[in-house]
Amino acid sequence: MKNLLIAQSGGPTAAINASLAGVLEKAFASPRIDTVYGGIHGIQGMLEGKVMSLSDRFAGNEKDLKRLYFTPDMFLRTCRYKMKSLNEDETDYKAMAELFRKYDIGYFLYTGGNDSMNTVAALSGYVKKQGLDVKVVGVPKTVDNDLVGIDHTPGFGSAAKYVAATVREVMLDTCLYPFENVAVVEIMGRDAGWLTASAALSPIEGWDVSPVILLPELPFEKKNFLEKVEEKLKKDRFCVVAVSEGVRYEDGTYVSAGEAKNDSFGHPLLSGTGRVLAGMIKEKTGAKTRSIELATAQRSAGHFSSATDLDEAYNLGYKACEYAINGITGVMSSLRRISDEPYKVEYETADVAEIADKVKNVPADWIDPQKAFVTEDMIRYLKPLIAGEPDIPIRDGLPDYIVM
Amino acid sequence: MKNLLIAQSGGPTAAINASLAGVLEKAFASPRIDTVYGGIHGIQGMLEGKVMSLSDRFAGNEKDLKRLYFTPDMFLRTCRYKMKSLNEDETDYKAMAELFRKYDIGYFLYTGGNDSMNTVAALSGYVKKQGLDVKVVGVPKTVDNDLVGIDHTPGFGSAAKYVAATVREVMLDTCLYPFENVAVVEIMGRDAGWLTASAALSPIEGWDVSPVILLPELPFEKKNFLEKVEEKLKKDRFCVVAVSEGVRYEDGTYVSAGEAKNDSFGHPLLSGTGRVLAGMIKEKTGAKTRSIELATAQRSAGHFSSATDLDEAYNLGYKACEYAINGITGVMSSLRRISDEPYKVEYETADVAEIADKVKNVPADWIDPQKAFVTEDMIRYLKPLIAGEPDIPIRDGLPDYIVM
Repeated sequence: MKNLLIAQSGGPTAAINASLAGVLEKAFASPRIDTVYGGIHGIQGMLEGKVMSLSDRFAGNEKDLKRLYFTPDMFLRTCRYKMKSLNEDETDYKAMAELFRKYDIGYFLYTGGNDSMNTVAALSGYVKKQGLDVKVVGVPKTVDNDLVGIDHTPGFGSAAKYVAATVREVMLDTCLYPFENVAVVEIMGRDAGWLTASAALSPIEGWDVSPVILLPELPFEKKNFLEKVEEKLKKDRFCVVAVSEGVRYEDGTYVSAGEAKNDSFGHPLLSGTGRVLAGMIKEKTGAKTRSIELATAQRSAGHFSSATDLDEAYNLGYKACEYAINGITGVMSSLRRISDEPYKVEYETADVAEIADKVKNVPADWIDPQKAFVTEDMIRYLKPLIAGEPDIPIRDGLPDYIVM
Repeated sequence: MKNLLIAQSGGPTAAINASLAGVLEKAFASPRIDTVYGGIHGIQGMLEGKVMSLSDRFAGNEKDLKRLYFTPDMFLRTCRYKMKSLNEDETDYKAMAELFRKYDIGYFLYTGGNDSMNTVAALSGYVKKQGLDVKVVGVPKTVDNDLVGIDHTPGFGSAAKYVAATVREVMLDTCLYPFENVAVVEIMGRDAGWLTASAALSPIEGWDVSPVILLPELPFEKKNFLEKVEEKLKKDRFCVVAVSEGVRYEDGTYVSAGEAKNDSFGHPLLSGTGRVLAGMIKEKTGAKTRSIELATAQRSAGHFSSATDLDEAYNLGYKACEYAINGITGVMSSLRRISDEPYKVEYETADVAEIADKVKNVPADWIDPQKAFVTEDMIRYLKPLIAGEPDIPIRDGLPDYIVM
C-alpha cells in the first residue's frame, strides 16, 4: 500500500476539478492506495511542504465530490512556478523526491498544460534514476487546447461553449440598433486560436450573420480586416469581431503592443487587443464600437460548462490514476477521437516526452482568411466538444461551488 | 375589433422578449384584438413606417413562442431615438397618430425604461386630446433596475444572476495563485448601482471572502478604496472588485474620465472604469491586476437567465395587454412585492406620468461604505430575483435563440 499525491498547475479551467474528482473516485476505490494527498499551489506549494489529506476531505462524501466535479478553477490552487531543467539545477527534484519519501508516495499525478507536462517528464525520469518507485502521470488541461498528444484538452470544451454562447448573445445585442454598430470580443489564447475559433459556432441557424474571426496563427493585416468589417457593416449594419488576445502583425509585433508585459515563463501577458481593434474600426468607419474583455471569466465559467467536457475530464483523471496503479509512468492520460458523428473517443496514454514544450496550433487549412472565418473541418471538430448541459447543483440561484 | 401594436426600445435585456411573448399570448387569445403588429426599431422605425405582422409570424406557433420567451435582446429591434416634448415639436406625435389610423390600432404597448415611459406618457396624453381611441400602456424593462413605480424591473434579475455567478467564478479564479492577485469586474449602471450590488450575492457559503463593491450612489474615495483593497490582500492575498461603470469622485468627475463620450440622450457613455481602478491598484500594491469588462454580454446573457425574472416579465407583458383591452391607458404594467420569504408579488398598474424622468437609486442605508459592501436589506431584496433556472431550449449545445 502506497499513498497517492495529486496537484494542479497552470491556468484554471472549468473542468480541472472534474479530473480531480475522477482521480479521487478511482483512488478511493483502489485497494493499492492508502491515503490520497493533495499538493497545494502545485510544485511551488509542495516544495514548501504544503500538502493536505484529500481522503479526510472527500472519502465517502458523495455530495462534496459531486460539487467538486462541477466547480471551476482549482480546488488545490495553482502556481506559475517553473522548475529548472535537471542539468541546470537539481534542487527542486531532490526536494520533490524528499516529499515523496516523507509521505510514502507511490503515485504522483500532476494536472496541467505544456509547462506541467515538462515537469512530469523531468520528474518521472529523475525518480527512476534515483531508484524511487513513484509512478508519475500527467493529467491534461488547458482552455487553450494547444497540447499535442491529445485530440483536445479538457477545459477547452466548456470555455468554447461559453465563448460561442457569449458571441451569439453579443451578435443579438449588436444587431439591434438602426445605426452602424460594432462589438469586438477579445478571447484568450496567446499563440493558439482554438478558443477564438469556437466563436464560429455562434451563428444562429437561418440567420445569415457570422462574426469576423481573427486567429493568432495568421498575421494581422489591418487593411484586409477593416475591409471585412466594412463589408459586414454594408450587408448587416452591424459587425461582431472575435479576436484572439495574441494576434500579431506580420513582423511579430502584437496588435496590443504597448500594453504587453512578460510573465515568469517569458510569455507575453496580453490584454487590450480588443480595444485597439475597436479604436481602429471607430476611426475608419465612424461606427459605434464597443470592446468586450471576458478575460478570466471565460476560463472559469462553470455556470455554462459542457457536459461532454466534464465527462471527459473526469474520465481522464480516473484513467490517469488507473495507469499509475498499473505501473505506468512518464505518460499523460490522453484521448483519441474515433468519429465526429456520432461523437466517440477512446482513452489512451501519450508519451509525455513527446508533449512537453510543443504547441498545437490551428492548422492553416482550417482557417479561411478570405472569409475571416474557419472551415467546415474546424466546425466538425468543435461541434461535439460543447455538447450537453450538465446538471449543475444550484443553491439560491447560483452554482453551488466548493472551496478548500 | 381593433389591432394591437407593440414595440421595444432602449437597451436590451434577457427578459424583454419574454414580455413580448406574454403580450402575444394574451392578444392572440383575445376576441377584442384582430391583428398584432410589431413596430420595428421602436419609435424611430415606426416613424419610418417599419411595421410587421406578429400574428403571421407567431399565432399558433407554440415552438417559436417558446424560443421567443428565452431569447435575450429584442426580437423587434430597438432605437435610441428620443421624441421631442409636445410643446417643442408635434411632428412625431402626428406621425404616430397617423400610423395608428393607418393600421387601425386600438392598443399600443411600448416596452422600455425611463425614456420610453416618457414616450408612453406623452403619447397617451396626445391621442386622448386628438380624440383617438388608442390605449397606450408601458411594459417596463431595464437591467439597471432604476425605474420608479415598480419593485424591480424585468431584465434586472437575469443580469443580476449572471453578474453574481460571474463574480463568484472570478473570485475562484483570482484566489488560486501564491502571489497577490486582483481582478476588477466592471459592471453596467450609469447612475444606479443595483446591478453592481448584485455582486453581493457572489460569496460562497462557508468561505469568508467577499468582493469590494463600489456603487455610483456614493462618491469614489481613492484613499479609502485602496486601503480596503490592501486589507483584503493582507487577509486573503487576493481581492475582487465589482465596480459600476458610473462611479464618480466627490466633484462629479467620472473615474473613467477622459474616456467618457455622450450619447444622443445626453447620458455619458462609460467604459474603462475597471481599467482605471486596476491601474491604481497595480501602482499602489504591486499586485498582479486584471480588468474584466463584460459590457453588453451581461445584459444579453440569456444562457443563464433567472426563471423568476422571465416569469415576471411574461406576466407583466400579459397584464399590459389585459389592461389595454380593459380600456386602461397612460399606465405602466407594474408589480409590487408582498413578501421576501416566501417571495411573492402582486401585479398592478403604475401611473406613467409619475415614472418618466425619475430614477430609482440604491438607498443610502442599503450601502455599507465602511465594508465597501451592501447591507442585509439589499441581500434580502436581491436574493429572490435571481432564483430559478429556466429550461432553455438548446440546439447543438447552445441556446436555440430566435431572430426576426
